[in-house]
Amino acid sequence: MLLIGELINTSRKAIREAVEARNSGYIQQVAKEQEEAGAHYLDINCGNMVGQEIEIMKWLVETVQQVTDMPLCIDSPDAGALRTGLSLLKPGYKPMINSISAESKRYEAIVPLIKEFQAKIVALCIEDAGMPATAEDRLRIAVDLVQALEKQGVVQDDIYLDPLIKPLSTNENHGKEVLDAIRLIKEKFPAVHFTCGLSNISYGLPNRPVLNRLFVVQTMTAGMDGYILNPGDKAMMGIVYASQALLGQDKYCSKYLKAHRKGLYA
Amino acid sequence: MLLIGELINTSRKAIREAVEARNSGYIQQVAKEQEEAGAHYLDINCGNMVGQEIEIMKWLVETVQQVTDMPLCIDSPDAGALRTGLSLLKPGYKPMINSISAESKRYEAIVPLIKEFQAKIVALCIEDAGMPATAEDRLRIAVDLVQALEKQGVVQDDIYLDPLIKPLSTNENHGKEVLDAIRLIKEKFPAVHFTCGLSNISYGLPNRPVLNRLFVVQTMTAGMDGYILNPGDKAMMGIVYASQALLGQDKYCSKYLKAHRKGLYA
Repeated sequence: MLLIGELINTSRKAIREAVEARNSGYIQQVAKEQEEAGAHYLDINCGNMVGQEIEIMKWLVETVQQVTDMPLCIDSPDAGALRTGLSLLKPGYKPMINSISAESKRYEAIVPLIKEFQAKIVALCIEDAGMPATAEDRLRIAVDLVQALEKQGVVQDDIYLDPLIKPLSTNENHGKEVLDAIRLIKEKFPAVHFTCGLSNISYGLPNRPVLNRLFVVQTMTAGMDGYILNPGDKAMMGIVYASQALLGQDKYCSKYLKAHRKGLYA
Repeated sequence: MLLIGELINTSRKAIREAVEARNSGYIQQVAKEQEEAGAHYLDINCGNMVGQEIEIMKWLVETVQQVTDMPLCIDSPDAGALRTGLSLLKPGYKPMINSISAESKRYEAIVPLIKEFQAKIVALCIEDAGMPATAEDRLRIAVDLVQALEKQGVVQDDIYLDPLIKPLSTNENHGKEVLDAIRLIKEKFPAVHFTCGLSNISYGLPNRPVLNRLFVVQTMTAGMDGYILNPGDKAMMGIVYASQALLGQDKYCSKYLKAHRKGLYA
């Protein structure tokens, strides 16, 4: 299971304000809190800071690395911003790039960075024709992406496919198509990993946190093994650990019992 | 999804006391509450009333049927008690028998009742050699049971396999083996249904309700479509409806939205 802490993202108001004020203390606190809450990577995203993304990416990476050796996941659609972040990283681990897709322009721009920085890669199931509708669409795009990346020397174990989650409120099969896609892709590429953001699934429906949490359980049951989430969300983290235990992925239920002692189920 | 209300069971202290006092009002209230909470069948079990089971089964069935036309699930390991209950049922629906197994004595005793009463049957994955350990054990026993029942004219759609849930605390693979078993059995017999009681999974671990609820989500994701549960447990029922919606089994999310309006997520 790979948990990517999502909080350092300038689309979040508090982060944007801290960035604009160059309040390094707040950014560092958010980084440390995510580390302590159990994240494995920290996502760094300032994609909405138009015209300043490169400068701010540099500041964010340097600021975070002053207080932690946590692996970072550099997140941008822009190759220049990705290169800036990746160039500054401490050595000693595989960085993560978020993200490539099967859109030809994006694919061509990002692939050299994966090779240069020997990075893990989040690969979105989107193609030039647009977003996928069915499980089969996702499988087709995943096959294109994985085979193309393998030709570039990227191993399956470094690929984290994002099947793209769309709101249940616009079509009641949007959840099921993702679950079926995970199973189909896993059958074809057993060593490939998965990741996704969750909140889209519940858009437009009541009790969004309930739906988001249950969709974690469902996608984990289908084989998903990575999430971009807020590790400070105790209820969500509790669900992840309990679900892992029930899936036989937690020897002696030891992580689950540790989560219990930390008060995640209080 | 078939939800069997579990509350009318003399292993529950309040029910036993009501039975001993022949307090029909309490039993009838429990029956009505389960009906209103959304159960599809009501389980009737007095298997621990040694020496009086037949007399009490008769009293329970008559008492419940005075206030409701709900379908009943007659629950006993004893063919005589089952026959007593089944003989008293109102016409107009398929009764349910809980349960048969692949143990030869039990199988032989119960099979004539299924045919005589044209009943749906809960079939436990237990054989003369004992309880199953692995997914493959469960598949083997399920194949034996389903094929034998089919030879007797029972259709798959009337069979509810119980894969037998054992505590996660004694082996961290006990959940996974059940999930794998559901998938294997469903592949082999697409029209067969499933049911189970849940509480075994969490035996010996903290936060049992959390684990029980998540195991509902996981087993539903694997294909389980029936549970023996307390329909008055709002958190559990909320999980069932939300999980159904996420699995694409709830057109326009209408059952989920109804559950929301009923306050199941409050």
